Amino acid sequence: MTAWNSARRAKEERITAGARYAQGKEVAADDATALLEAVIRPGDRVCLEGDNQKQADLLAVALAAANNQILYDLHMVQSGVVLPEHLDVFESGIAKRLDFAYSGPQSQRIAQLLFGGKIALGAVHTYLELFARYFVDLTPQVALIAAVSADRDGNLYTGPNTEDTPTVVEATAFKDGIVIAQVNQIVDKVPRVDIPGDRVHFVVQANKPFYVEPLFTRDPAAITETQILTAMLALKGIYAPYGVQRLNHGIGFNTAAIELLLPTYGERLGLRGKVATQWALNPHPTLIPAIESGWVQNIHCFGSEVGMDEYIRARSDIYFTGPDGSLRSNRAFCQTAGLYACDMFIGSTLQIDLQGHSSTVTAGRIAGFGGAPNMGSDARGRRHSSAPWLIAGEQADPATPAALRRGRKLVVQIGETFGDKNAPLFVDRLDALTLAERLQLDLAPIMVYGDDVTHIVTEEGIANLLLCRNADEREHAIRGVAGYTPVGRQRNKKLVEQLRERKIIQRPEDLGIDPLDADRSLLAARSVKDLVRWSGGLYSPPAQFRNW
Amino acid sequence: MTAWNSARRAKEERITAGARYAQGKEVAADDATALLEAVIRPGDRVCLEGDNQKQADLLAVALAAANNQILYDLHMVQSGVVLPEHLDVFESGIAKRLDFAYSGPQSQRIAQLLFGGKIALGAVHTYLELFARYFVDLTPQVALIAAVSADRDGNLYTGPNTEDTPTVVEATAFKDGIVIAQVNQIVDKVPRVDIPGDRVHFVVQANKPFYVEPLFTRDPAAITETQILTAMLALKGIYAPYGVQRLNHGIGFNTAAIELLLPTYGERLGLRGKVATQWALNPHPTLIPAIESGWVQNIHCFGSEVGMDEYIRARSDIYFTGPDGSLRSNRAFCQTAGLYACDMFIGSTLQIDLQGHSSTVTAGRIAGFGGAPNMGSDARGRRHSSAPWLIAGEQADPATPAALRRGRKLVVQIGETFGDKNAPLFVDRLDALTLAERLQLDLAPIMVYGDDVTHIVTEEGIANLLLCRNADEREHAIRGVAGYTPVGRQRNKKLVEQLRERKIIQRPEDLGIDPLDADRSLLAARSVKDLVRWSGGLYSPPAQFRNW
Repeated sequence: MTAWNSARRAKEERITAGARYAQGKEVAADDATALLEAVIRPGDRVCLEGDNQKQADLLAVALAAANNQILYDLHMVQSGVVLPEHLDVFESGIAKRLDFAYSGPQSQRIAQLLFGGKIALGAVHTYLELFARYFVDLTPQVALIAAVSADRDGNLYTGPNTEDTPTVVEATAFKDGIVIAQVNQIVDKVPRVDIPGDRVHFVVQANKPFYVEPLFTRDPAAITETQILTAMLALKGIYAPYGVQRLNHGIGFNTAAIELLLPTYGERLGLRGKVATQWALNPHPTLIPAIESGWVQNIHCFGSEVGMDEYIRARSDIYFTGPDGSLRSNRAFCQTAGLYACDMFIGSTLQIDLQGHSSTVTAGRIAGFGGAPNMGSDARGRRHSSAPWLIAGEQADPATPAALRRGRKLVVQIGETFGDKNAPLFVDRLDALTLAERLQLDLAPIMVYGDDVTHIVTEEGIANLLLCRNADEREHAIRGVAGYTPVGRQRNKKLVEQLRERKIIQRPEDLGIDPLDADRSLLAARSVKDLVRWSGGLYSPPAQFRNW
Repeated sequence: MTAWNSARRAKEERITAGARYAQGKEVAADDATALLEAVIRPGDRVCLEGDNQKQADLLAVALAAANNQILYDLHMVQSGVVLPEHLDVFESGIAKRLDFAYSGPQSQRIAQLLFGGKIALGAVHTYLELFARYFVDLTPQVALIAAVSADRDGNLYTGPNTEDTPTVVEATAFKDGIVIAQVNQIVDKVPRVDIPGDRVHFVVQANKPFYVEPLFTRDPAAITETQILTAMLALKGIYAPYGVQRLNHGIGFNTAAIELLLPTYGERLGLRGKVATQWALNPHPTLIPAIESGWVQNIHCFGSEVGMDEYIRARSDIYFTGPDGSLRSNRAFCQTAGLYACDMFIGSTLQIDLQGHSSTVTAGRIAGFGGAPNMGSDARGRRHSSAPWLIAGEQADPATPAALRRGRKLVVQIGETFGDKNAPLFVDRLDALTLAERLQLDLAPIMVYGDDVTHIVTEEGIANLLLCRNADEREHAIRGVAGYTPVGRQRNKKLVEQLRERKIIQRPEDLGIDPLDADRSLLAARSVKDLVRWSGGLYSPPAQFRNW
């Protein structure tokens, strides 16, 4: 006789085992480790909520403190590997296998643990891909999540950092898994219900608010004139001719410069209302001047950003907010928006090779992908048209009859030819390939593949890869904007000039841009304090960004 | 002074206007039209929940009955155009513009209204693409949705047909829109909370349960021996060599035949546990024998299927279910699973051209796309490997070094060379092109583009397009399985034989399959009654499928 409800019975047993530490659904913080030891089973798939920003830090500490004779060989399936405890569990043997998407601050240690064989790597995913697998072959048996508050029935309020929580909970709770939430406080009534209580089995009140990293704050004071030049090139050479209205900006100073140039340089180009109106984007503080100047119609957010709460509340026409007035973010839907409803993704990377493949992996650092592979890929399932998408499609494939020609998403890599510590952005061979060999990975960790990249912008100009007709043209389009890097110096000058005549390469002067005009006076805000002023005092930057 | 909270104020005004007809959140069915006239504004974007299966039919009737002097020029943004009322609103001028994804039963009338200029068409989308736009440029101001029950706070229980509801509500409610739900009953406590009440503004109790179409029920009695042959070819020629475990089946008798062959022919091939273990799929009754025979590990569902409720409840290890025991479906997540976590999509179509483009549009019928463009496209953001994906990638591109080579999703079109009413499956020119000309569309409504299709299966054999090295080979691979259709008869026989030697074309005999073995005795169930028997009486087919 086959058992057809074994997971349901196991769930009941787990709840019974955990209930010893609970009053109703509430568990004291001191009992968190005992709760996890009672509820989790060796070999379980566990999602320890590590989002791009929000961290279930109390539960991370509690899991890391578990007895590795009781809990071992866990398979961690979570977006972010961000806190030290996320890796401590691998050191101690509590966890063995890892599927993840992003590992910013732990990129060096995760590499060491992989090299040392302490982590069996499933794959490095893009967020939406990992979410997809939650419903097919990586469904968590236990989810350890974070929220702002809970009521006694377990209804959760996530506040502005909803992020991955609804997705993780849906996959876990509806497949007979156990959901344990840490909350900052337990209240009589939550300000809004982000997660219904019948999906939540235990609630642990934390002794301090969960950790959130201000990941998307860029201090305008640190933006260089070279970055301003690349921003001018992007605005005049890409945003304007394609008329890009629906878009996503990656993290970084180059895109922050674009945001701060909209109300100044963009205004001068007459682009207000014509470009950058609808966004899939975290609440970047550097977008405040453009919002205040009437550039932006609406923004849907993956997560939130520290200090932006009051500003968002006062600008509900722009953001998605709940009945309580605070932001409702949702990474799954925002990634879907980035994939299917945006006409452009523009972001930075650490290395680009001669095929246009890019990677943020360098020797000894595995940073993960985050959302870039998803947003930086052409959505082949897309069936609605828009002007920028049609123009890009025609540039890529002028021969196909219009009705049978697909458009193309604009995928733009922007950066300086030499980046941090003077490391060249352009390389003959990606470090990602060396890593793949060393770890015997099926695939090198490529963030955006060359065949999805449409433009590369550096201070030397714009390379439009859509217009290249073969691999050789493509290689020289890349060399032609690679400046004085070794890759750039190995260019065939004549071929590069031919590409320039065909506008495959456009120099600043070809676009009527004088590099000497790339001045910090063009920035709508030149400091964090300026951003606060633009916001009418509503933006409240975190302490590390205040120097006044 | 810019108004930054105008949508919030408008929401309050709308709620106040609607509250005249409400006690708490409850509105009598007789007042539904008055409620809509009070709450909706001319020109609004409105989602009138029309899912693939579940229909907010009371609200559809109520909207169609509105005064077109009060409500006009609405922009309807909804997945399904299924009920007559969905189009009546365009006849009367209440609605003007339409963005949608699927229009099965209304495909003829929607074409007439488009030709007649009564509908201004935005675009025909795939579901996930339309959902994406809900968060960027097609956010509804008002959502009219359907649920099984509500409590007095507006908490909703959707039952097994959750489908699109969470997505529609999230986009609407968190952008200061109004959510109106019709429910079958109002109760003290809902069995589970599918939609939290603070996202729901008005609840209308319907006088009868909302309409659900049994869209995924295929009577095994109607499966032909030709369909059985194509199923054998698919199993032995594709499922087995690629080892496809994670997959989606489209609607149709060809894929139903595959499902019914798993416990018989599939078992004989030794494939149990090796293929078809994890699914993104509606609860197809024809999968019951495979489930009962231990083939299936888990299934995540877009929606549900009439009559499958008790079976699903008793098989919770297989399906995603709630604490109440009934199915939790979710189209957005299941489509995401189909895009990023499945290695194969296999489905049928009405026309395939010589480039491999396929379409379900025929002269005078616009059926829409549903999920096929999304699931039938290669996910270029995917970064995890699997055996089938790597094999397909290598077949398509043997030259690229493995670490830099992307895999490929298997996208299979399966059908008979002559379909319904003897219409040829293969055509020189798609009717979709004629339609695009007539309606001056930017894009012909292609369901799956040829460059995403990897295999075509007919009773004449399998064409593996991955192995084709140029357009000519591709064209002849298609002609080579097109049988006695005009396209098939125009083949160059010598070229086709060369393709067969290279295994680009595989005939039944090349796979060791004797077409005479394609017998109905191979079907694990030969009738709906057989399916009921397999289910131990748990499957309760709708009346139109009962003939005993």
